[in-house]
Amino acid sequence: METLSIRTHAREEMMDITRMLNSMIHANGWTDGALLLYCPHTTGAVTINEGADPDVVRDITVNLNKLVPRNGDYHHAEGNSDAHIKSSMFGCEQLVIVEDGTLQLGTWQKIYFCEFDGPRSRKLWIKWLGA
Amino acid sequence: METLSIRTHAREEMMDITRMLNSMIHANGWTDGALLLYCPHTTGAVTINEGADPDVVRDITVNLNKLVPRNGDYHHAEGNSDAHIKSSMFGCEQLVIVEDGTLQLGTWQKIYFCEFDGPRSRKLWIKWLGA
Amino acid sequence: METLSIRTHAREEMMDITRMLNSMIHANGWTDGALLLYCPHTTGAVTINEGADPDVVRDITVNLNKLVPRNGDYHHAEGNSDAHIKSSMFGCEQLVIVEDGTLQLGTWQKIYFCEFDGPRSRKLWIKWLGA
Repeated sequence: METLSIRTHAREEMMDITRMLNSMIHANGWTDGALLLYCPHTTGAVTINEGADPDVVRDITVNLNKLVPRNGDYHHAEGNSDAHIKSSMFGCEQLVIVEDGTLQLGTWQKIYFCEFDGPRSRKLWIKWLGA
Repeated sequence: METLSIRTHAREEMMDITRMLNSMIHANGWTDGALLLYCPHTTGAVTINEGADPDVVRDITVNLNKLVPRNGDYHHAEGNSDAHIKSSMFGCEQLVIVEDGTLQLGTWQKIYFCEFDGPRSRKLWIKWLGA
Repeated sequence: METLSIRTHAREEMMDITRMLNSMIHANGWTDGALLLYCPHTTGAVTINEGADPDVVRDITVNLNKLVPRNGDYHHAEGNSDAHIKSSMFGCEQLVIVEDGTLQLGTWQKIYFCEFDGPRSRKLWIKWLGA
């Protein structure tokens, strides 16, 4: 598998990694199949959502904090149980289609690496599954 | 990849597409592998849940609206931030098993295309991954 | 596909199945590819999260119950609509990387079979997708 190194800068962050992934696809000569994007961190996730208006990402992270607040009925001593819960809600992996050597995404879609307990230096694992 | 055209009729809708997918599997002669179901729209999702009692789908959509209401602390001007949040909570893709040319689902499972900002004319992308 | 039999003991439970999956990978001689973990039950899910401190699993299940309570505005007569909603929030399938005949997981990650309407005798379906 390949690895992407990511540096987040806020406690909650959704970082657009679409361009980095297309570069990796090109560099590896992958043409037709699916790409498994896997986050090996338990306070992170991978999701796909709108990339045209940055307010969408703002609305997602702000309202996710209302659903799962940082402080609450938590026993885990590290103070990041909210981030673990969000990780399972969004999911740590995503499978995307590749054809003609390019990610097949909807018009408004971008791929986001999510970190809910940053800032952190993180990795994303990428596994190619040929068609 | 193949494409399924879908027309939703309400703002929030979960449409059972199981039969359409089995027809596509049969038409393409796919026998053993996995089918990647990918929604290219940022207010949509794909999920699998109960199909015997329509009240389950009603309970899911109604209570998802309680968790993520249509009106709230949103900056995105299109008025559909709730739909974007739901899209990331349910996820835009699903991978299902195919054996003997048939979707392998649990007794009560059906596959649902979800649209949270309809009614809309939508597409579902389907990529075959042979075993 | 292969099948794993699981017995849960509480209404809501996240059972660590990582060791059982590695045994299955070894027994089948799978070396390089991805493993599709599929829950065929509509009140269950598969998720990946922290396995070092059991308080994390406790915090996830307790706070998921706050988000989606057992009693509420539900029409489904079986009294388990909360479990169906949680199933779609966490998702019924997970795809994980296998290399060198071993699950590739992050340092703190474990794979959990989730049942939200137990105790139950359940199955997990496992489909191998070679690279």
